[in-house]
Amino acid sequence: MASNYSPKYFNINFPQEYVAHVEINRPNQLNAFFEAMWLELGQLFAQLSTDPAVRAIVISGAGTKAFTAGLDVKAASQGLLSSDSKASDPARKAVHLRREVGSFQDCVSSIEKCEKPVIVAMHGFSLGLAIDLSSAADVRFCAKDTRFAVKEVDIGLAADVGTLSRLPKIVGNYGWVKDVALSARLFGAEEALSVGFVSRVFETKEEAVKGAIELAALIASKSPVAVQGTKELLNWSRDHTVQDGLRYTAVWNSAALQTSDVQSALLSGIQKRKPTFEKL
Amino acid sequence: MASNYSPKYFNINFPQEYVAHVEINRPNQLNAFFEAMWLELGQLFAQLSTDPAVRAIVISGAGTKAFTAGLDVKAASQGLLSSDSKASDPARKAVHLRREVGSFQDCVSSIEKCEKPVIVAMHGFSLGLAIDLSSAADVRFCAKDTRFAVKEVDIGLAADVGTLSRLPKIVGNYGWVKDVALSARLFGAEEALSVGFVSRVFETKEEAVKGAIELAALIASKSPVAVQGTKELLNWSRDHTVQDGLRYTAVWNSAALQTSDVQSALLSGIQKRKPTFEKL
Amino acid sequence: MASNYSPKYFNINFPQEYVAHVEINRPNQLNAFFEAMWLELGQLFAQLSTDPAVRAIVISGAGTKAFTAGLDVKAASQGLLSSDSKASDPARKAVHLRREVGSFQDCVSSIEKCEKPVIVAMHGFSLGLAIDLSSAADVRFCAKDTRFAVKEVDIGLAADVGTLSRLPKIVGNYGWVKDVALSARLFGAEEALSVGFVSRVFETKEEAVKGAIELAALIASKSPVAVQGTKELLNWSRDHTVQDGLRYTAVWNSAALQTSDVQSALLSGIQKRKPTFEKL
Amino acid sequence: MASNYSPKYFNINFPQEYVAHVEINRPNQLNAFFEAMWLELGQLFAQLSTDPAVRAIVISGAGTKAFTAGLDVKAASQGLLSSDSKASDPARKAVHLRREVGSFQDCVSSIEKCEKPVIVAMHGFSLGLAIDLSSAADVRFCAKDTRFAVKEVDIGLAADVGTLSRLPKIVGNYGWVKDVALSARLFGAEEALSVGFVSRVFETKEEAVKGAIELAALIASKSPVAVQGTKELLNWSRDHTVQDGLRYTAVWNSAALQTSDVQSALLSGIQKRKPTFEKL
Amino acid sequence: MASNYSPKYFNINFPQEYVAHVEINRPNQLNAFFEAMWLELGQLFAQLSTDPAVRAIVISGAGTKAFTAGLDVKAASQGLLSSDSKASDPARKAVHLRREVGSFQDCVSSIEKCEKPVIVAMHGFSLGLAIDLSSAADVRFCAKDTRFAVKEVDIGLAADVGTLSRLPKIVGNYGWVKDVALSARLFGAEEALSVGFVSRVFETKEEAVKGAIELAALIASKSPVAVQGTKELLNWSRDHTVQDGLRYTAVWNSAALQTSDVQSALLSGIQKRKPTFEKL
Amino acid sequence: MASNYSPKYFNINFPQEYVAHVEINRPNQLNAFFEAMWLELGQLFAQLSTDPAVRAIVISGAGTKAFTAGLDVKAASQGLLSSDSKASDPARKAVHLRREVGSFQDCVSSIEKCEKPVIVAMHGFSLGLAIDLSSAADVRFCAKDTRFAVKEVDIGLAADVGTLSRLPKIVGNYGWVKDVALSARLFGAEEALSVGFVSRVFETKEEAVKGAIELAALIASKSPVAVQGTKELLNWSRDHTVQDGLRYTAVWNSAALQTSDVQSALLSGIQKRKPTFEKL
Repeated sequence: MASNYSPKYFNINFPQEYVAHVEINRPNQLNAFFEAMWLELGQLFAQLSTDPAVRAIVISGAGTKAFTAGLDVKAASQGLLSSDSKASDPARKAVHLRREVGSFQDCVSSIEKCEKPVIVAMHGFSLGLAIDLSSAADVRFCAKDTRFAVKEVDIGLAADVGTLSRLPKIVGNYGWVKDVALSARLFGAEEALSVGFVSRVFETKEEAVKGAIELAALIASKSPVAVQGTKELLNWSRDHTVQDGLRYTAVWNSAALQTSDVQSALLSGIQKRKPTFEKL
Repeated sequence: MASNYSPKYFNINFPQEYVAHVEINRPNQLNAFFEAMWLELGQLFAQLSTDPAVRAIVISGAGTKAFTAGLDVKAASQGLLSSDSKASDPARKAVHLRREVGSFQDCVSSIEKCEKPVIVAMHGFSLGLAIDLSSAADVRFCAKDTRFAVKEVDIGLAADVGTLSRLPKIVGNYGWVKDVALSARLFGAEEALSVGFVSRVFETKEEAVKGAIELAALIASKSPVAVQGTKELLNWSRDHTVQDGLRYTAVWNSAALQTSDVQSALLSGIQKRKPTFEKL
Repeated sequence: MASNYSPKYFNINFPQEYVAHVEINRPNQLNAFFEAMWLELGQLFAQLSTDPAVRAIVISGAGTKAFTAGLDVKAASQGLLSSDSKASDPARKAVHLRREVGSFQDCVSSIEKCEKPVIVAMHGFSLGLAIDLSSAADVRFCAKDTRFAVKEVDIGLAADVGTLSRLPKIVGNYGWVKDVALSARLFGAEEALSVGFVSRVFETKEEAVKGAIELAALIASKSPVAVQGTKELLNWSRDHTVQDGLRYTAVWNSAALQTSDVQSALLSGIQKRKPTFEKL
Repeated sequence: MASNYSPKYFNINFPQEYVAHVEINRPNQLNAFFEAMWLELGQLFAQLSTDPAVRAIVISGAGTKAFTAGLDVKAASQGLLSSDSKASDPARKAVHLRREVGSFQDCVSSIEKCEKPVIVAMHGFSLGLAIDLSSAADVRFCAKDTRFAVKEVDIGLAADVGTLSRLPKIVGNYGWVKDVALSARLFGAEEALSVGFVSRVFETKEEAVKGAIELAALIASKSPVAVQGTKELLNWSRDHTVQDGLRYTAVWNSAALQTSDVQSALLSGIQKRKPTFEKL
Repeated sequence: MASNYSPKYFNINFPQEYVAHVEINRPNQLNAFFEAMWLELGQLFAQLSTDPAVRAIVISGAGTKAFTAGLDVKAASQGLLSSDSKASDPARKAVHLRREVGSFQDCVSSIEKCEKPVIVAMHGFSLGLAIDLSSAADVRFCAKDTRFAVKEVDIGLAADVGTLSRLPKIVGNYGWVKDVALSARLFGAEEALSVGFVSRVFETKEEAVKGAIELAALIASKSPVAVQGTKELLNWSRDHTVQDGLRYTAVWNSAALQTSDVQSALLSGIQKRKPTFEKL
Repeated sequence: MASNYSPKYFNINFPQEYVAHVEINRPNQLNAFFEAMWLELGQLFAQLSTDPAVRAIVISGAGTKAFTAGLDVKAASQGLLSSDSKASDPARKAVHLRREVGSFQDCVSSIEKCEKPVIVAMHGFSLGLAIDLSSAADVRFCAKDTRFAVKEVDIGLAADVGTLSRLPKIVGNYGWVKDVALSARLFGAEEALSVGFVSRVFETKEEAVKGAIELAALIASKSPVAVQGTKELLNWSRDHTVQDGLRYTAVWNSAALQTSDVQSALLSGIQKRKPTFEKL
């Protein structure tokens, strides 16, 4: 299976049946991202999304220091944030910037659009893009040493690849979101846990990754029809009224309820054995 | 008053003036629901909604073991989840499933649409449908022994009568919602309290029910114009922008502010006595 | 700078560069509001919004007893809540009430629409309108002695100048919102902190105000392009889907990323010195 | 089949296989509606919606003078529009009016919610409620003699059972909608045709009804899976963005495309014969 | 009455009871607009909106040549479109432009927000801003000689004070809207009539104005509760789903139906006399 | 320029500066589409969207008989509509169908997302997919001989790549849309013109293509900043409220108004010469 994936900036392996583990692999630069990396990330999650051998995914960062320190500012200042674009007309420059930001956003959104649940295990520096990326995932774990910040204001810009749109819908404390996003201050694992940004804090990075893989394995043992429907319906509902959520759910389940997984699951429940489900 | 209600699967009584107490009454089967029950629930709340003798409602479950263990899976596997529907064409089967799920959703939504506040007091097993039902209510209390689960994934399906649409709008921890909805794992009263799914935890079921009735009685002592407006405006605002919320509020209150309850309440405040309000 | 502002019901001063401190100044009446006060508040925040000498704003209440006890009920019962409007036709009365409520809402919304971040420091009685006002701000701090209530139901009406539309989007505990809004009960600083209504609790009012000014000063030291964009994008995203949030962000930043603040900020970061940013 | 329907205020017959013809039957009072009539209308369309023997529906009015002259004002002035409601408090009166208007709206909306296409054939006076009712249908035909008016302003009220919400989404001339709705003026068949309110004008009522039945019969000869999906997807799309329309369509068709009707239709096309489709 | 209005750039008179006639009064410059004019327009319509002596409004342009040739480009090139803004930073320039465009939009929107119906009578050159302004009104009439154009593209910009947001919702021919907005070509009265941009074409300007005043007078003779409700409910419905439209209508009418105008109108109908309605 | 494009199923040429002409090139099969074709179409429009040498695009069909007869049903019945998918589980089949329909929709939407205006010139058979494709374009022209149909119902399915979501927002006659979509009947050029589906009808295909190229050339002569902004703002406004449209417009133009095209256009207007605009 793994042979079909050959990313350049990420490690990928399959620690359990149906579980993929993606590792950001640029530890010498604190896993900071440049354009080729986020483009590859987008392609990787598009592929994972429809791979029948994958039912749940874990993301973590290589090395001991950082999940990711965010945007590689040096690279960005020669690209996205560069003042010497070819265009001199501010309106034309704006068109190019809009396209670039849009393309970057699409790569980050590939995690949300991925049909399989994605669990992030963070540690060390988890700045800027770390918040954007993990906010696009489904569940967030972290190690005790993690240091978070919505860092963008400190480099003169409003975060633009997802944090400002997703973070307030993930945690239920809008004042806290404004505080950290406006001040760019650091916050730690306990604070992240208390506002619900992460669901669990582990002693070490290794344990956080192990915990994430265990949750992924548990999810991967369930009916993929039920799991993927649950992810989709939760994401749809976040952006729609309750009534639109209910209607979409009824339409979605009018096909999904015809699965044989329901019978398999019910029967396994009665027989106290682990069900197996057809690939998806 | 009580004589006008004669539900078959629920007990109903009126422990205080203006307070109705609805009890799910199938304790021998852990208060598990089958179709006739949810249809009756829908009719019951439609009636309570416009009954001028009712100003607040409490829901609990009969018996010591469960608020409700959810869908009666045996009954459902002969009905909703049955594979041998009369239709063999998957598209026609989908139409029938969509109608059935829609009808089921409407019954659950009758709690939300009920013009009077609804407080749920849970205990014991509170699985699957228990989450759907209580998410459609206004306030949730529980006993210390309550064991919750968004159980649907374990029977091969995505929850479809409200949990996935309402739960993320009730608690402010989207990662937690995804965790419990994707893993179907059990969680207890303390966890439910810490994420805000329930507002209070009581030592016993009896105390939870008593607490719910006390809150209901407190609410029932207020102006019904003010209380019912508050429920409606909060529910509308959840599904609309702040601006649409403000506009709807202004239009709503352009009639509601003409109530004599304002004068009654103000006067009672000055005179330090309990106001009485005309029926509604 | 301060000479340009001469509000009648508020004190205004500038404790730090780029920081404005607005104090509700009617301490003998517990800072209760009447119409002329909220009209002035609206004008004040419209002016602050585009004043290039202001980058962050703090609101607090004069005196030791109250941030504000809310609506001046006596004044209101001769105006907004008066039963002897000139119109006798309920439909015409409704038109006048709708206009008055709308005008009142606009004044409160001026805090949200203000392009600069607004931090509220509350103490003592913080009832009714106190919740509406502070919910329209970005960050809320309070002193240990603060006593909050969504008080409106107790005077026979549903809160109509923002609480019901904004509060559920600020805290992630919808059951709690319903509880306090339906029961009108008092709650204290610790409870407000635990549900995320306030971000920090201070020992005294003085410390709360000092803390708010410090946060304001920190925010005011950042790029105003980045800070104001962050406030706007967070507010937009609250009321839109993630996708609409991302698109709006890309369009917004297509102009904002052309700022020289990015270079200033990056350079200052490298040179370990405090950047200065052009007025805005 | 017809034996299952026994409406009191409507005639119903089945002029062709799968086609139901509903006739408003109060010709002596110009088919004017009172409450019992609209309640029956709602029940009738709920039943038709899921009747597998019905695939398309025609509505017309009995007698030569009117499709319907609208609300029976005499009856209404003793009910809905009555000034001597039991409640004297304007806020309580408002609650009762809101419930009554809501119930009336639901009856009219039953035409839109009916899963089968509905074609209206109008003639003579088609006033007030005639516009509300026909706007909730899918296609509108009329006789040359039809006299239309959005009449409500002339009796002192804004139309409230659908015209103001649906008419602007049916015709593409918002100025015309405002003109006729604000002035309450009469307009004839040609004007209705030119703005697209009706699709065809016939010489006589009889021909209009015949034309409607022919279109209904043509639609009824198609795959009911395809026809009902088309009605639903058009109605959904009217109220959503293009993107939400596309997504909902993909989810809907993921079940619908599994129908054997596609093969039947394709095969019939090749063999140049009329396909038959399983009931739905 | 007229003495209360003293606009500088507009004439205002009251040709009939309850009818106001506003005339753009800068005929020597083809009624082209500069900033002070649109600010005054906004104030004027805010005042008319709540003036109980006004129930319908007509807008036309002074002189024989133009309703308005749009923006006064010479003035604008020193202001809004000027390249030498004080700010040199493109991001700061963007902030100023956004505020200016927003302020301009608010002035145009005052026509839409005006609670009374507004009828526009156009003639001669009706370019650029003429389309923005008239699209914010309720009904559009024109003289045979009118020459329209969505002219903005020809001066290097996308129309930004309303045309692009409102025009597609006024006419039901999106291809035509794109054609005229992308090409900036001229179109005449007949074309405007055929796509529904104007409702009637008159031989001369005088007749167009006369026709507009007659329609205004007709509308002004109806119940103001009914008329103003109709305008509001149509505008709300344009921007919301049918369901949200119905709900808002029910809430709105729960106060409006309590008007005595209903009885007056019904009685006048029976007695065949003209009703009179209390001021609003 | 043309050398950079080498589509297999389409011809592409550049009849005028900045104008691209795309021709569907499968005339022997009536330009019917199979999967490889729509995938290529999607890529082609993605490339055209950001090609600075292209400012407007024309689409037509090769040969004399058809713009396109729609889906190649033979090919589709082995793919998308095939009953023998690898999956036997209806829920899994639904997942695959949803992905395929989604991918197909994305290709059609590439025409709408293309930043440059797209004009379609149709002739002969223009069935099924012809309506989906052309509805995603900006302006539609056709030859007198064109025969249109929303054909999908006749092959047992609801149209699912755009017609049902876009057509009702293009023409202002919802009854007509329902009529043609439910009956699948043919309609001609005159009918298409009268409802506004096409903007102009030409005697022959050649003239239609020539007319389209002329309009494209006219649009291409304007400021690309203004033209592309106009397309984007019209598309955004279609799917949003007027207020959201106005706000987005103000933000968009805060960058776009900084273009030097405004000065170029103004100056050229004064000097009566054709302006030239920098590439975009």
